[in-house]
Amino acid sequence: MALADVKALTFDVFGTVVNWRDSVARESQAILAPKGYVKDWHSFADRWRARYQPAMDKVRNGQRPWVKLDDLHRENLVDLLEEFKISGLSAAEMEHLNYAWRRLDPWPDAVEGLTRLKRKFIIATGSNGNIALMVNLAKYGSLPWDAVLGAEVAQSYKPLPEAYDRSAAALNLAPEQCMMVAAHNADLLAARARGYRTAYVDRPLEDGPNKTKDLKAEHDFDVIADDFIDLAAKLGC
Amino acid sequence: MALADVKALTFDVFGTVVNWRDSVARESQAILAPKGYVKDWHSFADRWRARYQPAMDKVRNGQRPWVKLDDLHRENLVDLLEEFKISGLSAAEMEHLNYAWRRLDPWPDAVEGLTRLKRKFIIATGSNGNIALMVNLAKYGSLPWDAVLGAEVAQSYKPLPEAYDRSAAALNLAPEQCMMVAAHNADLLAARARGYRTAYVDRPLEDGPNKTKDLKAEHDFDVIADDFIDLAAKLGC
Repeated sequence: MALADVKALTFDVFGTVVNWRDSVARESQAILAPKGYVKDWHSFADRWRARYQPAMDKVRNGQRPWVKLDDLHRENLVDLLEEFKISGLSAAEMEHLNYAWRRLDPWPDAVEGLTRLKRKFIIATGSNGNIALMVNLAKYGSLPWDAVLGAEVAQSYKPLPEAYDRSAAALNLAPEQCMMVAAHNADLLAARARGYRTAYVDRPLEDGPNKTKDLKAEHDFDVIADDFIDLAAKLGC
Repeated sequence: MALADVKALTFDVFGTVVNWRDSVARESQAILAPKGYVKDWHSFADRWRARYQPAMDKVRNGQRPWVKLDDLHRENLVDLLEEFKISGLSAAEMEHLNYAWRRLDPWPDAVEGLTRLKRKFIIATGSNGNIALMVNLAKYGSLPWDAVLGAEVAQSYKPLPEAYDRSAAALNLAPEQCMMVAAHNADLLAARARGYRTAYVDRPLEDGPNKTKDLKAEHDFDVIADDFIDLAAKLGC
């Protein structure tokens, strides 16, 4: 492994840094249960998330111009509420519910691990979330990013090549000086194809008890870690 | 003053957060004096800085496409070395000298003030410096930004309207929810014209002992502060 040249770590965020599923379930319940709705709130979170990739696909394939994730989440929420037969929310309530994605708890090891990694590396978001979403999420969870990069800065959604290329370019680094950190095999494969180093972090609880994919690192990534503290140790931090 | 709605502070950086003049003089001397050059290193810094606005003007007025500040600094350095009759630097030495702009000391109050302001507000760069420059400068000086915005994200150099408009948009905020913080009257006037709130911070030493402009706030900005600690106090942090 030629990891000595790595200067920056770019992080997938949803699932890798934060626990979106339990957090979105909790936030949705907190807003909607007092209105009398009784639902499976984890299923509500899962169904919201299920609309995530198809919505980005329309931007990726050029079917529509650039739309930031906050807006895709909002469009998906409208459909989701219809699916769950929930209605009558005010504009302010809709915004507050949509911004549940800004109130996601970091995994228990995330802040300590990032703080250690930050001593040695530039740590930046490499998420499909837009800048405002990432900034507010960092405020909520005290995530100590050096920079918020990712989809909006690159104007491209992972796993398109430009998403990785432009994040490295924004840091004035060669791809080989960047390491993508993710709990998702496909993200790391796409980053590796652009020249990035790769670190897989195990997040066995991301999709709840019935997780069916990304159960383990399926390729020979540069680092395979149990969590961010293990990642910090393996990177000498 | 209707400042209760302000959610984010965007900061001019060169001169307002960091002391570019003394730092560039020190860094240039450290690299060039051992090669036998005896120069007025503060004059060297001043002359480098004097090329800053004219270089951006060519981008602002469309004479050339987008060029990031690292590259403008590098072009200006080539001319500057000729002016000072300095030659024979290797590519690595040129890069190290150009990256003097990544090794600028924060004003003594800056880190404490930013740390206090960060508790209540999103704090972001609103500089003409590019992302890599700002990220490395923050690492060097322990500047605790929530986000690196500014010219490269906006693809526009202050004081053009887009530079302010796109920074607010990136945070998903109305301009009135943003406050520009700067030691320069013109920057604040341009921000105010786009709807921003404004805070003037006094930096009497920015241009050395013979400072001739921006000696004081020349307009009724929302806040006028002696330094970042005074700014934090005046904003209730």
